[in-house]
Amino acid sequence: MSDIANRDRKTVPAPKDQHLRDMANCIRFLSMDAVQAAKSGHPGMPMGMADIATVLFSEFLKFDAADPHWFDRDRFLISNGHGSMLLYSLLYLTGYEDMTIEEIKRFRQIDSRTAGHPEYHHATGIETTTGPLGQGLANSVGLALGERILNSSFGDDLVDHHTYVFLGDGCLMEGISHEAISLAGHLKLGKLIAFWDDNSISIDGATSLAESDNQPARFEAARWHVQEIDGHDTDAIRAAIVQAQKVKDRPSLIACKTVIGFGFPTKAGTQKAHSDAPGEDEIAGAREILGWSSPPFQIPADLLDAWRAIGRKGRAARADWAKAVEDSGNRDFARRMKGDLPPDWRSAIDAAKAELLTSDKELATRQASGIVLNHLYDAIPELLGGSADLTPSNNTKAKNQVEITPDDFAGSYIHYGVREHGMAAALNGLALHGGIIPYGGTFLTFSDYCRPSIRLAAMMEVRSIFVMTHDSIGLGEDGPTHQPIEHLSALRAIPRLAVYRPGDPIETAECWEAILDTPREAALIALSRQPMPMLRKDGSSENLSAKGAYVLLDAEGGERQLTIFATGSELHLAVEARDVLQKDGIRTAVVSMPCRLLFERQDPSYQREVIGDTRARVAVEAAVRDSWDRYLGLDGEFVGMHEFGASGKIDDVYKKFDITIDAVVRAGRKAAAHA
Amino acid sequence: MSDIANRDRKTVPAPKDQHLRDMANCIRFLSMDAVQAAKSGHPGMPMGMADIATVLFSEFLKFDAADPHWFDRDRFLISNGHGSMLLYSLLYLTGYEDMTIEEIKRFRQIDSRTAGHPEYHHATGIETTTGPLGQGLANSVGLALGERILNSSFGDDLVDHHTYVFLGDGCLMEGISHEAISLAGHLKLGKLIAFWDDNSISIDGATSLAESDNQPARFEAARWHVQEIDGHDTDAIRAAIVQAQKVKDRPSLIACKTVIGFGFPTKAGTQKAHSDAPGEDEIAGAREILGWSSPPFQIPADLLDAWRAIGRKGRAARADWAKAVEDSGNRDFARRMKGDLPPDWRSAIDAAKAELLTSDKELATRQASGIVLNHLYDAIPELLGGSADLTPSNNTKAKNQVEITPDDFAGSYIHYGVREHGMAAALNGLALHGGIIPYGGTFLTFSDYCRPSIRLAAMMEVRSIFVMTHDSIGLGEDGPTHQPIEHLSALRAIPRLAVYRPGDPIETAECWEAILDTPREAALIALSRQPMPMLRKDGSSENLSAKGAYVLLDAEGGERQLTIFATGSELHLAVEARDVLQKDGIRTAVVSMPCRLLFERQDPSYQREVIGDTRARVAVEAAVRDSWDRYLGLDGEFVGMHEFGASGKIDDVYKKFDITIDAVVRAGRKAAAHA
Repeated sequence: MSDIANRDRKTVPAPKDQHLRDMANCIRFLSMDAVQAAKSGHPGMPMGMADIATVLFSEFLKFDAADPHWFDRDRFLISNGHGSMLLYSLLYLTGYEDMTIEEIKRFRQIDSRTAGHPEYHHATGIETTTGPLGQGLANSVGLALGERILNSSFGDDLVDHHTYVFLGDGCLMEGISHEAISLAGHLKLGKLIAFWDDNSISIDGATSLAESDNQPARFEAARWHVQEIDGHDTDAIRAAIVQAQKVKDRPSLIACKTVIGFGFPTKAGTQKAHSDAPGEDEIAGAREILGWSSPPFQIPADLLDAWRAIGRKGRAARADWAKAVEDSGNRDFARRMKGDLPPDWRSAIDAAKAELLTSDKELATRQASGIVLNHLYDAIPELLGGSADLTPSNNTKAKNQVEITPDDFAGSYIHYGVREHGMAAALNGLALHGGIIPYGGTFLTFSDYCRPSIRLAAMMEVRSIFVMTHDSIGLGEDGPTHQPIEHLSALRAIPRLAVYRPGDPIETAECWEAILDTPREAALIALSRQPMPMLRKDGSSENLSAKGAYVLLDAEGGERQLTIFATGSELHLAVEARDVLQKDGIRTAVVSMPCRLLFERQDPSYQREVIGDTRARVAVEAAVRDSWDRYLGLDGEFVGMHEFGASGKIDDVYKKFDITIDAVVRAGRKAAAHA
Repeated sequence: MSDIANRDRKTVPAPKDQHLRDMANCIRFLSMDAVQAAKSGHPGMPMGMADIATVLFSEFLKFDAADPHWFDRDRFLISNGHGSMLLYSLLYLTGYEDMTIEEIKRFRQIDSRTAGHPEYHHATGIETTTGPLGQGLANSVGLALGERILNSSFGDDLVDHHTYVFLGDGCLMEGISHEAISLAGHLKLGKLIAFWDDNSISIDGATSLAESDNQPARFEAARWHVQEIDGHDTDAIRAAIVQAQKVKDRPSLIACKTVIGFGFPTKAGTQKAHSDAPGEDEIAGAREILGWSSPPFQIPADLLDAWRAIGRKGRAARADWAKAVEDSGNRDFARRMKGDLPPDWRSAIDAAKAELLTSDKELATRQASGIVLNHLYDAIPELLGGSADLTPSNNTKAKNQVEITPDDFAGSYIHYGVREHGMAAALNGLALHGGIIPYGGTFLTFSDYCRPSIRLAAMMEVRSIFVMTHDSIGLGEDGPTHQPIEHLSALRAIPRLAVYRPGDPIETAECWEAILDTPREAALIALSRQPMPMLRKDGSSENLSAKGAYVLLDAEGGERQLTIFATGSELHLAVEARDVLQKDGIRTAVVSMPCRLLFERQDPSYQREVIGDTRARVAVEAAVRDSWDRYLGLDGEFVGMHEFGASGKIDDVYKKFDITIDAVVRAGRKAAAHA
């Protein structure tokens, strides 16, 4: 295929099929025109991958533009999200109602549907938010996995679709691509088909400046089926997709040798085609080379008709599917498609609380979480568990969950391997697919490894649930690298991410209930390694944690003089310090704040009531103070971490960093004296 | 090699060399005894890799236990850092002065040198902090790259050593392993030799639960030389190392099939050997199987003598090298080994400031940084630049920096590819090596991709410099995925990490000066995409940014009534808002805070002076408020981000989120009214 790479870029090879070339040119010119109008954007990818997209959409993709949410549609993602104009062009051309030509003209303008990178929720047909490279590929693994799991439960008539993903050189350089392809290959996700835009160009120049990988061999080593084709040869594209669909036991990579900016007279095949407005001259040259005479943003009527017909061609299949759903009478399927929980799911929380209250020993919140999950899974079969190779530590496997294997998807637990990032992105894909509520575990310190995917979960408002145990220096001997210090603050800083840190077993159950009550919110629950006392012995049925924060113990003997805020494994320190302070005559309230985000959504009067009027405030958390500072300011006292942790027995570590009942008492006295 | 995997674990194969087996058993029993005493730790890896380590140390590794800092020593790392007892055993056995048997006995106890995972600075001979999987492997790429670069400058007599790294299945599942091996293969780092502990076990059970990769094929696809051996056959280990050393143009993987917990009677070859105290029975069984009769923590005198001799065997080579250094008379080499800067380097800062002050147009801080780097590189040749495929955007390449290629290391700029995580870990390796001051660029939003390595840089206190441009919604059209919102707060939360965000070109030069002035500190500099006004037109020679924060403009007309804090591209908003507020009669000071960490190190009286007495405070930063809250508390006003960003023209985006001069004025009035 070296002739493709080396050929004269000022001409383009004669098409195998002129109609398909013309159809692809619709994408190319919309992309050029939009980028030129915005004076910003990435024309190179849409122009390079237009032929592939045209064959895929016109001959293979199962979709109906009139029903973008058709549950059994094929999923189509662009992991190389900077090529967003490819996707927007396809949505407009095939007739998605909300993707008008006006939106195309408003590409990259404020409050348009056509943001710089595809944003989930901005327009229908955008299956996921991409841009940070590799994420879409890793999402696609979750989407394809979700399809297999649901197919296993509900059969071919209800769930049977492909997942197609476009990706670029950058996606393949990112580490997450390794985790994704390794997991997909292991799980034999045969209905996942990836198209690599092998254009040999990245921002710094030729990819050979930085990379020498043999990508086909790499994918084969990860147990993928691999084909290499000319990405502008529509016959070859068609044949490759047919072949990829035939391979059932391996995901498929179709390596497509392409010319970036295909059609540009001077920029094609160079990094100059990657981004930025091409300029009028370059576009004029492309018009000549590609034989295009329509004015900017205008698609010739016959071509637009042809595209719109493609947008309608899935209609009959969609109707057949809808009938099959109705005929099946499967109410569980209908419910899960909608994202509703089983009507009686809340009784599982009650049962879990009851079991927790009878425990005769102190429990770590990770253990409490495990008990809650035992009950929840029995009530909510769409709960899909998993862990990044820390199953026995994360307590993520409910007792009745069965492992999914590459040859049997009729389970509900995944061994994700030591792939925190790939797991998190797969959770996003599973949540995006729908019908499944995915959660996955690792240590809180490794939230750093999956932070880009956690951020996207929060941004997309999908119900990915991150279970993060060993949430402080309380993990003890493993030492500083394994002890999260800044992570709680760093995670709470992510907009929209609900970060929970329950302070006893009952709060753990409440946090799980709150998580499941918010279908459009990503959640992270931080759980302790070490046992802690039961503080909510009453087990009150009102979900106090769902308010984000509440007064666990009010001041006694008069008006409140001091407030101690705490979470998680430090909550009991606050409670015990309060006893001492009350005896000292300092009227002290303890506020438990399992979720700052939820608290800040409460009405201001409730917030004032919880925070209290006194400026004498102490916060206690075995972590840095940053996310507490808004309650403390420069006057409040903080008992927590100011440095990285240390390896040692848990009691020695807490003592070394002075996070003790005595330290809280001292801080309380100091705060009360100053206020 | 299936016989290794399947063999009866209650016996172990007869050794090829009884002496080497006995030597390896020293490691095994120290590891078992230490884990058993601590009731915590990971015996499986040290027992499985003891034979490999014994052959490597006794016959190949160039080191001298009496001089752990010998600059031309071979570097030895364990990327599977949970196997720390392997390393501690080797350091004790070979006679590193600070690794006494008492320290071995205090394994995992508070304030010991023998933390759960190897901690850089805790003891000599620990080349890097490992534990988070894959990091050591990725550090080793930086170490091996540093060796090649210095060899190219100073020749074989002064710099010529290997980098050896042990790694486990978990390291290879992590995405960072892909970035690392792809970069190493591309750069043809022939002196990097990795040993994979191919024991087929991870925490959840057999690796086959989660993984099906053909690892040798994967490494070959990344252009590595690969050998597969029995990791307990000392002849095979020796032959493989000899062969790996012969291959000059490819890094080497030696895939070592091993039995985890080799020697355990019941746990060998199972996940039960991975971690936790083995128990007295298991140890007793191992004693019988391995023929070991010494009491716990006691090494037979002849074996200890033999190990100590290994620790001394590099002494002559070290003396020869020291003589070569002296004979060379190369003062630059001596200086760089010590980590000192050239005596006159500061004049480069002065020259940069002078050039910046003559600019007739507004500059983005990334552009200012580029100008500063032009001057700095000319003065400090050990500055090694690079970018994760964003060179033209990050302004990281100084005009006189030449690119390093796989065949020529006589340059000073690296194209790291789209590998933010691999780059960050390589920077750590380069900084750990010494003789080089590495910096690398990407967009600030992608600090998430490399956060685990940034954290380790901060923890290790190495001079890795992260250059992060496009540091706010000011990047405009690329939209929410590319706009950092929570990142500044999340990074400032990392202990010891100096996060700089200069507010004009002069501050940019000052921040670079401060970074270079702190050799034992990891630094991150956040730079704008968009131009901003020159606010420090005086170009004062005192480095005000080095104080972390300072009063840029004091209140006029009497005592200060309002303080506005700001950084970066929002600093000029504060300045312009102050003009309005002063005219309103509100006596307003503007505090620039380019580095919170440095400010918090100032003496309290300076801090009070800068913060001021008035409680009327406003902070302005196009990011979330969390890292400002300590100055604001619940009373202060914040002008910044409360949500993810948006795609649009920069002015539209700032307006949408109400980060404007007017917004600062409003916030100032409100704060002043309440105080």
